[in-house]
Amino acid sequence: MKIVLIGGHGTIGKTVAAALSSRHEVIIAGRNSGDIQVDITSETSIEDMFKALKSVDACICTAGTGYYGDFGTMRGQHMTAGIQGKLMGQVNLVLIGKDYLTEGGSFTLTSGVAAEQPAKNGTCVAMINGAVNSFVLGASQELKRDQRINAVSPGLVEDSGVRYGALFPGYNLVPMHKVANAYLLSVEGAVNGRIIKVYE
Amino acid sequence: MKIVLIGGHGTIGKTVAAALSSRHEVIIAGRNSGDIQVDITSETSIEDMFKALKSVDACICTAGTGYYGDFGTMRGQHMTAGIQGKLMGQVNLVLIGKDYLTEGGSFTLTSGVAAEQPAKNGTCVAMINGAVNSFVLGASQELKRDQRINAVSPGLVEDSGVRYGALFPGYNLVPMHKVANAYLLSVEGAVNGRIIKVYE
Ligand SMILES: NC(=O)c1ccc[n+]([C@@H]2O[C@H](COP(=O)([O-])OP(=O)(O)OC[C@H]3O[C@@H](n4cnc5c(N)ncnc54)[C@H](OP(=O)(O)O)[C@@H]3O)[C@@H](O)[C@H]2O)c1
Ligand SMILES: NC(=O)c1ccc[n+]([C@@H]2O[C@H](COP(=O)([O-])OP(=O)(O)OC[C@H]3O[C@@H](n4cnc5c(N)ncnc54)[C@H](OP(=O)(O)O)[C@@H]3O)[C@@H](O)[C@H]2O)c1
Repeated sequence: MKIVLIGGHGTIGKTVAAALSSRHEVIIAGRNSGDIQVDITSETSIEDMFKALKSVDACICTAGTGYYGDFGTMRGQHMTAGIQGKLMGQVNLVLIGKDYLTEGGSFTLTSGVAAEQPAKNGTCVAMINGAVNSFVLGASQELKRDQRINAVSPGLVEDSGVRYGALFPGYNLVPMHKVANAYLLSVEGAVNGRIIKVYE
Repeated sequence: MKIVLIGGHGTIGKTVAAALSSRHEVIIAGRNSGDIQVDITSETSIEDMFKALKSVDACICTAGTGYYGDFGTMRGQHMTAGIQGKLMGQVNLVLIGKDYLTEGGSFTLTSGVAAEQPAKNGTCVAMINGAVNSFVLGASQELKRDQRINAVSPGLVEDSGVRYGALFPGYNLVPMHKVANAYLLSVEGAVNGRIIKVYE
């Protein structure tokens, strides 16, 4: 398969790329890194990326994040970047990318455990993950030409333990091979409309 | 209790107002209707409303909607109104309103069954409802001064059957008294961080 992996140089993306690249052509896309540049906050940039790729059999997104911070002083503006990036960026990858995705192709988006178990200070990220999950449920009924879509919802992953562990007290670290497997299940399996939870 | 009910002249809002008004002071807020005007897409308007009310014991929102339409031609721009209204409007009611809510006061937001059972053409609404639900889970851990927050997630309600039934084939109509009860449970009960599902 020809697979585009947006965010493929990130923590999760690197692991997913490694798991897929022996069997597939994996094209890494990133804002500043990768084989091809894309900024998923821009619909034009997404369209340009897909035009350059011509067609792909799978589109995986492990890019984007959301605001962490004190709820008492949080305002709508703190949520804008996450909405434009992780949420609408991933939504637009699907709305635009479906016309470039081959028959039987798949989308795999990334949400996260916060959708149902928000961490302290993580209400913005929770909101965005919940939105991504429900978008995937809807889109999975609508895609044509046997295309599929799933979300991988990781817990705090092992490779982020040092950097983010203190923000997630009591969250078990998820082994990287389990995270990779969730993406494999979506890309190489037959599942559709699944929120693939990898919480421990 | 002094209760502000945003969207209180709408289909669901009317029913909730009727159920609460014998025991409480219910102030109806709406864009064009009601005792006080507010446009929840504007943070300034929300702040002005709460300043005028001085303080409330409960804030209920039954205002806002999202785009319904063909997925094949849907674009990011179709989702903007729903994100600014039903999603960020409700979020901002909480982020701003918590300082005007009394100790022990409650927020009750409205999501909908689409979060987990999207209708055909309803992926935008699904996304927004999923976001509202996960926001509520996060916020429920963060609110101070014993404040609580819940979401009511209605199915297609009886009073909307004629108007919207054709858009929701196979969805059971939810009796209005059950919808009203969900809001009562949130406002008068002790629950916090609950997605109160009223699907049939
Ligand atoms: N790490 C965890 O434990 C964890 C747990 C649950 C969920 N998640 C979710 O998993 C996803 C990946 O997390 P991660 O920790 O692997 O992230 P990461 O290490 O920060 O990597 C993010 C990658 O996304 C790219 N990117 C960021 N913004 C972009 C944009 N606007 N357009 C295109 N590319 C963009 C970055 O590329 P450049 O470097 O080129 O800018 C980078 O390669 C996120 O959605 C995160 O919320 C992570
Ligand atoms: N009806 C259903 O079967 C159903 C099912 C599941 C979920 N829901 C959800 O329940 C909520 C209420 O639905 P509904 O059918 O009762 O809606 P509705 O009849 O259309 O009423 C909406 C109310 O919200 C107010 N409103 C709209 N935009 C506003 C804004 N920007 N600022 C302030 N007020 C605003 C309107 O006031 P004005 O008239 O003054 O503009 C109106 O009173 C919505 O979130 C809907 O998605 C409904």
